[in-house]
Amino acid sequence: MSKPVDSAVSAVRTCVEHHRAAFLADLTEWLRIPSVSAQPDHAPDVRRSADWLAAKLTGTGFPTAEVWETPGAPAVYAEWPADDPHAPTVLVYGHHDVQPAAREDGWSSEPFEPVVRDGRLYARGAADDKGQVFFHTLGVRAHLAATGRTAPAVTLKLLIEGEEESGSPHFRALVEEHAERLAADAVIVSDTGMWSEHTPTVCTGMRGLAECEIRLYGPDQDIHSGSFGGAVPNPATAAARLVAALHDEHARVAIPGFYDGVIELTDRERELFAELPFDEGRWLRTAKSHAVHGEAGHTTLERIWARPTAEVNGIGGGYQGPGSKTIIPSSAMVKLSFRLVAGQDPGHIEKAVRAWAAGQLPAGIREEITFGPATRPCLTPLDHPALQSVVRAMGRAFEQPVRFTREGGSGPAADLQEVLGTPVLFLGVSVPSDGWHAPNEKVELDLLFKGVETSAYLWGDLAEHWRHAP
Amino acid sequence: MSKPVDSAVSAVRTCVEHHRAAFLADLTEWLRIPSVSAQPDHAPDVRRSADWLAAKLTGTGFPTAEVWETPGAPAVYAEWPADDPHAPTVLVYGHHDVQPAAREDGWSSEPFEPVVRDGRLYARGAADDKGQVFFHTLGVRAHLAATGRTAPAVTLKLLIEGEEESGSPHFRALVEEHAERLAADAVIVSDTGMWSEHTPTVCTGMRGLAECEIRLYGPDQDIHSGSFGGAVPNPATAAARLVAALHDEHARVAIPGFYDGVIELTDRERELFAELPFDEGRWLRTAKSHAVHGEAGHTTLERIWARPTAEVNGIGGGYQGPGSKTIIPSSAMVKLSFRLVAGQDPGHIEKAVRAWAAGQLPAGIREEITFGPATRPCLTPLDHPALQSVVRAMGRAFEQPVRFTREGGSGPAADLQEVLGTPVLFLGVSVPSDGWHAPNEKVELDLLFKGVETSAYLWGDLAEHWRHAP
Ligand SMILES: [Zn+2]
Ligand SMILES: [Zn+2]
Repeated sequence: MSKPVDSAVSAVRTCVEHHRAAFLADLTEWLRIPSVSAQPDHAPDVRRSADWLAAKLTGTGFPTAEVWETPGAPAVYAEWPADDPHAPTVLVYGHHDVQPAAREDGWSSEPFEPVVRDGRLYARGAADDKGQVFFHTLGVRAHLAATGRTAPAVTLKLLIEGEEESGSPHFRALVEEHAERLAADAVIVSDTGMWSEHTPTVCTGMRGLAECEIRLYGPDQDIHSGSFGGAVPNPATAAARLVAALHDEHARVAIPGFYDGVIELTDRERELFAELPFDEGRWLRTAKSHAVHGEAGHTTLERIWARPTAEVNGIGGGYQGPGSKTIIPSSAMVKLSFRLVAGQDPGHIEKAVRAWAAGQLPAGIREEITFGPATRPCLTPLDHPALQSVVRAMGRAFEQPVRFTREGGSGPAADLQEVLGTPVLFLGVSVPSDGWHAPNEKVELDLLFKGVETSAYLWGDLAEHWRHAP
Repeated sequence: MSKPVDSAVSAVRTCVEHHRAAFLADLTEWLRIPSVSAQPDHAPDVRRSADWLAAKLTGTGFPTAEVWETPGAPAVYAEWPADDPHAPTVLVYGHHDVQPAAREDGWSSEPFEPVVRDGRLYARGAADDKGQVFFHTLGVRAHLAATGRTAPAVTLKLLIEGEEESGSPHFRALVEEHAERLAADAVIVSDTGMWSEHTPTVCTGMRGLAECEIRLYGPDQDIHSGSFGGAVPNPATAAARLVAALHDEHARVAIPGFYDGVIELTDRERELFAELPFDEGRWLRTAKSHAVHGEAGHTTLERIWARPTAEVNGIGGGYQGPGSKTIIPSSAMVKLSFRLVAGQDPGHIEKAVRAWAAGQLPAGIREEITFGPATRPCLTPLDHPALQSVVRAMGRAFEQPVRFTREGGSGPAADLQEVLGTPVLFLGVSVPSDGWHAPNEKVELDLLFKGVETSAYLWGDLAEHWRHAP
């Protein structure tokens, strides 16, 4: 026996069905614009993409839809206030720029000429992120149609940036500049995915990131390893010993104070991770690694989602060409990145790393440590009312239990959390096979319309369960 | 009261004085030939240098003087047999090629237009090694003049190669090819120096060298440190941990079996090292290092001369450009060199390194280890009769006690020791300020003629104290 479908659901589905063809035609038009932010000759296309989206959002009914300038590529901002002044405000984040793509990279069709094959829409940006931005446009219309409203149940704001694939160099400044207009009770990031097409999931957080480069200086120039070897400190050795000292024998980060404040996984969260149909062999093939390796006492999913890390992204010193050169190098360099989890503070990490590194080095080795800008971790507790709404909305759309994931990477959404002081939630329907940043990127049309549906259910649910105290 | 000068000494000095001007004129002529082996356009000059030397040795009285071809630059071989068939045979090693030099590198005069200023002869090759090869020519004449002989007291062989400054790529094959003609009871290497102009010394050995490159492979390509970081092995981390594991907390090499067979310094040798007027601050300035660092329980001189080492000459992996790149690199590389001391066997070291490295690596990291050709260490015991002769001859020339040093570097003379099975001794009068391989290379004329004298006393002393059993 199939579950009875409630009337709200059938109203949403009727509306979605009605607008399906137009929605896909519009999305296709948008996907034809090669808004590649990393390639300067596509700057006019990125602008065209912003203009196109702003116009489309106006057409959807947003009373406000603006193109916001940055020193780089423009963002799009739109706003649709709720009638009820006590309704919560939600800010949806996404991006309208895309990764570079060329037919010769291995695409079966032109990356900027969208085609549907076997229920999949193939195009650069289909999943990352135009498709997932765009499902909100039909979502809000279906929400209005199914509820008979003329304005959404929440005040809806959209911020769709144009430089995400270039590292969002101006995003934080943009958010700071417009912080007042962007103020919200929750941020919904729709630039993410779910576990698989058979396992709908909600992402509850992502790791933060702190990065540094450590340069070590020994002799004032490369010196002869025969004349001096064994009697002076070697900066390449010091760099290696520093890196080796990053982890203890349990593969835990050994920097004193590194774990300060870490919010540990609850037993419930560990159970929820363990419920996911994780296939380690398959995961290893995706990772192209030949073994798993990580912090003792944690599963692979816990390690990539919920545990902080220290990784060497690059190391270099001395002679790296063919053959040999018997020198003690004058300097060496290490690039480290630290993935951070909720409760960790990048400023504290920087202090801890500096103190630790200085204490590791032998006399005669001088260090220079440079930290880049950091990204804070995000985490929404399982019992957060907005998260509960996302789970319920997704459950109605997918007619399946919704499970929980986290994201191991780090993204600009953390700037929204930090600047606006707003919890960040994640709503995405893309699946790992969608091929983000790869040739033949696609989106599963069934899932895309589940996204539309989720968006349609979400605003009413949020308003109902998370109303401001009047 | 000055010591009375014995008659042999005054005879030698009279002869040296008599030929002084002609000797310097000849050496100057030789130094004008820019025999730079590392620069292909100087190949004709290297050949001219060999021809010049062979002719000069014939003129000196050597019955045999030949230019020996190699696939690279030619060497010169000369031989002057003793009358006594029981006399020992000595093979002198040196080289006639020189380092590159150009006025604009900082020379005060043209590097290939020798000039004498303040008792110093300035020219490329003045000390390294033409001057020190050439002192043997007048040395043997003074030996004959002072003793009234028509042939030297020992059978004298000279092998003066033409590719030392290019790494002696064909030297070993040359020695193997001519092993029978090169057979000797001792090799005297005159491509070395002494402690200082005030402290004449004899070098009693040099370190050997084994070199390898270790390549470590992790994921099949660079992977994202957000998606996978903390859960897979990182080859750059593995490389660093390998390097860190090279040394224990006492800066001793921690590779099991590394010290197998090492001939430890005797108390007498340590005392002799300690007698040298070593100034650590000055040494550090020469090393351009800001601290000393090395194996616990040993002085700096012991560390560079008599202790084996493991040094990192190069390390590399992942992203080394500006800024950051959040990857786990797919591979990393380490270049290691091991200085070896007497008693260590390069083949055993290679086996020990391979076994040790394999045992250090985590699952999922594959290694590829490549060893280059090794150089064996040389060591002549203090009580070796030929060494005693060198010390006595030098003591007569310098009228001072002669002390002992060793050489931390490694040289082609080790091939002579290995191929010919002959002990290697070192006789040089160059001093650290002579500027080998640097602009304004020079030789101190006083010391150069002390070299002539030493050579003149040496052959008689050797024949007297080290005669073959008839
Ligand atoms: Zn994206
Ligand atoms: Zn030399």
